Amino acid sequence: MSFEYLIDPEKGPQWQGVLPGKPVPYVLERGEGEHAMLFGDLFTVLLSGDETQNQFGIIVSDSPAGDVIPTHSHNETHETFFVLDGKVRLFFEDAEGARQSRLLTPGDFGYVPAGFAHAYQIVEDARMMGTLSGGFERFFQHMGQPTDHPTKDQPPFIPDFPRMQAAAQQHNMQFMRDFEWPEQA
Amino acid sequence: MSFEYLIDPEKGPQWQGVLPGKPVPYVLERGEGEHAMLFGDLFTVLLSGDETQNQFGIIVSDSPAGDVIPTHSHNETHETFFVLDGKVRLFFEDAEGARQSRLLTPGDFGYVPAGFAHAYQIVEDARMMGTLSGGFERFFQHMGQPTDHPTKDQPPFIPDFPRMQAAAQQHNMQFMRDFEWPEQA
Repeated sequence: MSFEYLIDPEKGPQWQGVLPGKPVPYVLERGEGEHAMLFGDLFTVLLSGDETQNQFGIIVSDSPAGDVIPTHSHNETHETFFVLDGKVRLFFEDAEGARQSRLLTPGDFGYVPAGFAHAYQIVEDARMMGTLSGGFERFFQHMGQPTDHPTKDQPPFIPDFPRMQAAAQQHNMQFMRDFEWPEQA
Repeated sequence: MSFEYLIDPEKGPQWQGVLPGKPVPYVLERGEGEHAMLFGDLFTVLLSGDETQNQFGIIVSDSPAGDVIPTHSHNETHETFFVLDGKVRLFFEDAEGARQSRLLTPGDFGYVPAGFAHAYQIVEDARMMGTLSGGFERFFQHMGQPTDHPTKDQPPFIPDFPRMQAAAQQHNMQFMRDFEWPEQA
């Protein structure tokens, strides 16, 4: 069994420096980027606010089918959900405050701007691309665990509650307990 | 032969209003969005600066294989190139001013921030997603021709020179004639 996904604590992640950290051109091959595990999901940062004058960041997620993630909202972050592979159910409060859900399949696109409660469920193993207001892209490595292994086929990382709270506070978001979504359409 | 891609000039494009025009949640199915033809390429806006407080916009392009597009740079626009299908060669000036080219295949990602000369060539019919600084996403319908038909299989639209100039000026970009790229790596 290989443990190349474990990071040498002396050196930090091998992906350090793969993003330039300033607005200059670069290319990443599929699988390159800043990797972090959060629960059973691999999140990879392809672009950060450091390269875009904080306009936007881009992530790719690789996720196993599972339960609905905790409902939350962002005070300042706009967020997109573009399905590359698999099936994802997006739950969101609409402009009238009604609670909606939509099943997204490859090529479908969802948008949730700042201030709207939302959640999602990976219905079939899925790969998504997300564009986020600049800075939020690193939430996943703050709540999760940086890793060098570029697939989700590695041990999950389960954050403890203080780590979850700290990451949510740092990134200006709220989890909303006891938030019920209607039966799936 | 069907002409459903022609827009009724009395009514304007059927896609009008498919984007909400303000920061509220919404979902688009694959093929939905604001369509425009520019040369033989279909550009579809999935998200505009109107929904993101001008932070970013998102387009999908469907393009036939062809020549290198004209080299250009944007004064204010950061731009990404994420290949969904096909093969695209991205040409760009790097941070040291050297002229680079990279062949991108599905899952590969390129970034060109404001101020850097770049071009691309569709090497094999390709579908790309691009995130752009907010506002630039509508360049393609300003230089191109809005259409209701959601595929590139329709007559090309060849803008005349004044239309090209007006769109470039409106979107704060320069075309760079006689810009040579090195032999392909």
